[in-house]
Amino acid sequence: MIDKVFLLNSSTAKKLYRFAKNLPIIDYHNHLSLNEIKTNKRFTDVYELWVEADPYKHRAMRMCGVSERYITGDASHEEKFVKWCEVIPLLIGNPLYFWSLMELKTIFGVSQLPDRENALDIYRLCNKYLADNIITVNKMLDDFNVELACPCVSITDDISFLENSSRFSPSLRADDMLNPTKDFIKKLEKCSQTSIKDLKAFKCAISKRLDYFQEHGCVFADHAIDNGFRFFDDDGLNDQRFVSLMENGLDKENKEKFSIHILLYLGQEYAKRRFVMQLHIGAERYTSTSLRNMVGPAGGFAGIGNSVDICSLVKLLDTLDFSENGLPKTVLFTLNPADNASMSVLSGSFSKDGVNGLITQGPAWWWCDHKTGIEEMLEATAAYSVLSNFIGMTTDSRSFLSFVRHDYFRRILCNWLGDKVKKSELPCYEKQLKNLIMNLCYGNAKAEVKSRRLLK
Amino acid sequence: MIDKVFLLNSSTAKKLYRFAKNLPIIDYHNHLSLNEIKTNKRFTDVYELWVEADPYKHRAMRMCGVSERYITGDASHEEKFVKWCEVIPLLIGNPLYFWSLMELKTIFGVSQLPDRENALDIYRLCNKYLADNIITVNKMLDDFNVELACPCVSITDDISFLENSSRFSPSLRADDMLNPTKDFIKKLEKCSQTSIKDLKAFKCAISKRLDYFQEHGCVFADHAIDNGFRFFDDDGLNDQRFVSLMENGLDKENKEKFSIHILLYLGQEYAKRRFVMQLHIGAERYTSTSLRNMVGPAGGFAGIGNSVDICSLVKLLDTLDFSENGLPKTVLFTLNPADNASMSVLSGSFSKDGVNGLITQGPAWWWCDHKTGIEEMLEATAAYSVLSNFIGMTTDSRSFLSFVRHDYFRRILCNWLGDKVKKSELPCYEKQLKNLIMNLCYGNAKAEVKSRRLLK
Amino acid sequence: MIDKVFLLNSSTAKKLYRFAKNLPIIDYHNHLSLNEIKTNKRFTDVYELWVEADPYKHRAMRMCGVSERYITGDASHEEKFVKWCEVIPLLIGNPLYFWSLMELKTIFGVSQLPDRENALDIYRLCNKYLADNIITVNKMLDDFNVELACPCVSITDDISFLENSSRFSPSLRADDMLNPTKDFIKKLEKCSQTSIKDLKAFKCAISKRLDYFQEHGCVFADHAIDNGFRFFDDDGLNDQRFVSLMENGLDKENKEKFSIHILLYLGQEYAKRRFVMQLHIGAERYTSTSLRNMVGPAGGFAGIGNSVDICSLVKLLDTLDFSENGLPKTVLFTLNPADNASMSVLSGSFSKDGVNGLITQGPAWWWCDHKTGIEEMLEATAAYSVLSNFIGMTTDSRSFLSFVRHDYFRRILCNWLGDKVKKSELPCYEKQLKNLIMNLCYGNAKAEVKSRRLLK
Repeated sequence: MIDKVFLLNSSTAKKLYRFAKNLPIIDYHNHLSLNEIKTNKRFTDVYELWVEADPYKHRAMRMCGVSERYITGDASHEEKFVKWCEVIPLLIGNPLYFWSLMELKTIFGVSQLPDRENALDIYRLCNKYLADNIITVNKMLDDFNVELACPCVSITDDISFLENSSRFSPSLRADDMLNPTKDFIKKLEKCSQTSIKDLKAFKCAISKRLDYFQEHGCVFADHAIDNGFRFFDDDGLNDQRFVSLMENGLDKENKEKFSIHILLYLGQEYAKRRFVMQLHIGAERYTSTSLRNMVGPAGGFAGIGNSVDICSLVKLLDTLDFSENGLPKTVLFTLNPADNASMSVLSGSFSKDGVNGLITQGPAWWWCDHKTGIEEMLEATAAYSVLSNFIGMTTDSRSFLSFVRHDYFRRILCNWLGDKVKKSELPCYEKQLKNLIMNLCYGNAKAEVKSRRLLK
Repeated sequence: MIDKVFLLNSSTAKKLYRFAKNLPIIDYHNHLSLNEIKTNKRFTDVYELWVEADPYKHRAMRMCGVSERYITGDASHEEKFVKWCEVIPLLIGNPLYFWSLMELKTIFGVSQLPDRENALDIYRLCNKYLADNIITVNKMLDDFNVELACPCVSITDDISFLENSSRFSPSLRADDMLNPTKDFIKKLEKCSQTSIKDLKAFKCAISKRLDYFQEHGCVFADHAIDNGFRFFDDDGLNDQRFVSLMENGLDKENKEKFSIHILLYLGQEYAKRRFVMQLHIGAERYTSTSLRNMVGPAGGFAGIGNSVDICSLVKLLDTLDFSENGLPKTVLFTLNPADNASMSVLSGSFSKDGVNGLITQGPAWWWCDHKTGIEEMLEATAAYSVLSNFIGMTTDSRSFLSFVRHDYFRRILCNWLGDKVKKSELPCYEKQLKNLIMNLCYGNAKAEVKSRRLLK
Repeated sequence: MIDKVFLLNSSTAKKLYRFAKNLPIIDYHNHLSLNEIKTNKRFTDVYELWVEADPYKHRAMRMCGVSERYITGDASHEEKFVKWCEVIPLLIGNPLYFWSLMELKTIFGVSQLPDRENALDIYRLCNKYLADNIITVNKMLDDFNVELACPCVSITDDISFLENSSRFSPSLRADDMLNPTKDFIKKLEKCSQTSIKDLKAFKCAISKRLDYFQEHGCVFADHAIDNGFRFFDDDGLNDQRFVSLMENGLDKENKEKFSIHILLYLGQEYAKRRFVMQLHIGAERYTSTSLRNMVGPAGGFAGIGNSVDICSLVKLLDTLDFSENGLPKTVLFTLNPADNASMSVLSGSFSKDGVNGLITQGPAWWWCDHKTGIEEMLEATAAYSVLSNFIGMTTDSRSFLSFVRHDYFRRILCNWLGDKVKKSELPCYEKQLKNLIMNLCYGNAKAEVKSRRLLK
């Protein structure tokens, strides 16, 4: 099923895919384990590699009535593996169905559709493979042709081991600075060797670390603009808020105001350093209290929030745009597909002299990362914005196997382009299409990284 | 036009439809007349059966410039029938066009496209058919292969005549409990044989009736979550609110707070009794005051409201989930298609150990019940949720002829699946697809009913 | 590429397009220059005609990294023309790509795809054409087969030169009355020969001018319902607000309340005069302060706002509906495509005895004016409303070349219908489809104009 022509439904699609399939991967935003990268971990258990690291799969198991014991509970790896295989045939139509098949095929060469009957066989087969072959982090990245991967890192994390890495570059996960805890401040004091008594010192410590990150090849930062996001104009009270925050904490509205203040500060620092600012817009992370208590905040149960308040988002961008260094290059990730058109159009609402794609929409994100979501995102960007500015796919994943999604994306892109050519919605100039594909699958992300790294 | 292959545009679609077409119908939510069911009414007038009972058709006539005299006014049945036939050709592209043809064909064997010229002929032909043949409620349900239909019933309604019915089961239309009038309380006192002086007694009366409903085979309840829905945490003032409500009424906000309190109470009672809770989300029922005054609240002029406030909906579900019996099985009906993705994703945000499909999205509802809406709903559920959990089509209709929509749905489903197979978006394992179709068209709804009825 | 069968992907589509292609154009809402119309301007420079007048193109250039010097700055026409040509190949997938080719081909007969290499050649070729041929406003409208064009005009504008025009009719751009400045009041006093001391006199002056507009063939008025629109019930304070407005101005909320008051007044006046009221819903016009300062408010950087508040919109319509003359015929233009379904459904929420299409959705507007947006609008109108009531395409453009978009629309419409016939979603009765196409491309707009003009 996952054969050469998988998802390529026209001769043009098949032809175009030839331009895409062998391009290296730049995965500019993901959640891979720093520790596993650092130690170049060798994987010896297929359950751990394939299921345990992937909250999407946990979520699907819950939805299919699997008892939590077999998801995050005390069942054995073998039992959990079997339960997951039982669920796969129920996932017809969901991206997990094909992702799972692609993952098994790419790394283990397994072509069967897992189910209740063959689950144990597959389990043993894969584990034998992992025993007979040395499958490490780096080996997998070789197999997937990954040129650069950018795992998320806190400003306080030790990234010294990335110093000489050409394959990994830190991506700044910056939200902990927006709502700092005392514990966070202590860590920041330590790593920045700065005593933080007030907001000014806090910013100074951040600035030092940003320099340090830049020196270590960081070119991407990201923020979550969750459901309920509101912009507040600066009221001059944020020095005071920082003090209160360190003393007694802040109420909800003051927290939000302080967060906006820091976000604006960081945006300006990103612009100064030519970081790309990623905004992940629209998650509703507080859903089931029971699940949150049971499996932690990243357990696969987040929802899609309401449409983002355009007015607040615009004010955030405009405030940055009007500041000394202007708006940093900004990528908008849309979780609610009802926002696709408005986010795509926003890409034409700000400009920086001579800069292309100052704002672009990011690839279909999280629950939207499937054929439907990817096509909707491409459609919106093409129709409402400029597709050739799109910086391409990233996995945003915790699993090393998720790099298959780049191939999934490329097939969908080429198929979508092929369809459009057939319907005369796109010109059939091969050279133009080849350029476009190479840029969207690799070239544009490469250019972002390259142009920024040269600044160092 | 409405032939064997109607809407089946690929050979796979045609093949798959063979699995669907002869399955019985379980119509788990509709607004059929209790009285007509009770009396097994015989229909003798095609206007009454085909047009009068269907507010969708009234709405279309208004939009096409027909004078109200011919819709709900004092024109004769014949005149009104003719006006409706004149409108049909103008409805190209609207579901009413094909529904109307399917309705005429299934019951009357009429294959012509009605228009101004042939309207009177069709009127006479159909009425002759109704004179020559005994077309009763039960005869129609036989012809449509309806195994079970669940008409909406108020908690105060007499449902004793359903006691031994295997074909009808009450579906609790529960909103009158959320905003009780004095009149309603009186009725409830009478049917529950409970004196209702305070909130506790009110709940006690409700509980008795819920038991009674359960004994009479009720497994479905439903609530309208209309435009403007907000959640409120319990502030401990609802006993007092009940008293005020009975005395002088409540202002808007207190009404809303009281409603939420009762909704939470009911949700817990549903969970206890394993009722399925249906939430019909997003209607804007207050549009034209003139039309409301003229033809009543259900006259076909409701609108689609804003996107639902996810935060409020999530809090409602989470509060129930965190209560003793947890969340009842919940079906979310989306009126605003902009909510499709967020509602589908919400199905993965709550879980109950070992329960599949704790939350699922309902079929395309009301104004969304057409090919576009059905396909969007299927697409969203497949991509963002788990399609195989979907409990299938229901008509939600006031007209006995609307059962044709099950066939309409099945054709669209099979065609959609066929397209996906052709584009390698779905595997082509016939057994898997057959199972899926049988479950979505019949099996899943059957399983809900069966598992709950066994509890009695 | 822009050949006879461009965008017509089925034999049915090709056949249907034969009914559409030669129909005259009625462009009932655009922003063409009154002065250029008045003087029947002759165009001698292709840059001015093709690029300068079109903010969509300016926006695209900014997004592709062209320096502002070559957009609105002091570069020469030739330099700016070349920069624009360089950008075109980057716009693959965006409507500007094909529009630009259609514009060059229709007027200049140029079939090449412009790029960096051939830009200067094309520039010279086109300018030679403009030197050798007398290309005036009227000549272009002849070539495009424009029967009637309705440019936007302020209530205070001199439209006497339109008095005997059969080709142009004023379309009232009415928003300046909702937030009148002192300067505006002075102009209004002058043109209406009315002294305006209070709200009553203000309305009286407006009413006089509306009569004058009606006498000059005006049948369309329009209002912007921008992001943030809220309805307010009349509180009886608007006389006072008018006085304050003239003296010291009003704060935001009082401004909004006053605007609603005038909008309701105007709506009633439109109904009385049988004007068609166009509501352009959902723009976010305040985005980049820098761009606004640099290139003015209409510089192509507006965004799409949040979904419109249905409740406010419904109250506006209901208040008008309940007034003496009822709701004027109303066309809802949706900028946020997430509103398509709710706007389409709203068309069935109000009625006027015997009037068809009292409310209809307008064509895909502004950023939505592309194949995706047009198809979504058609799909929504067909499925949720009554397609045959749709009054058809209008350009809403500042450029005389934009009439190509009518052909673009017609091809997309016929292709969409052809697809639907192929999938048995529409009947294949040629006569019905021909009627539909003729009405949507010309007949319905013609009927609106005709029925209203007869009233004069």
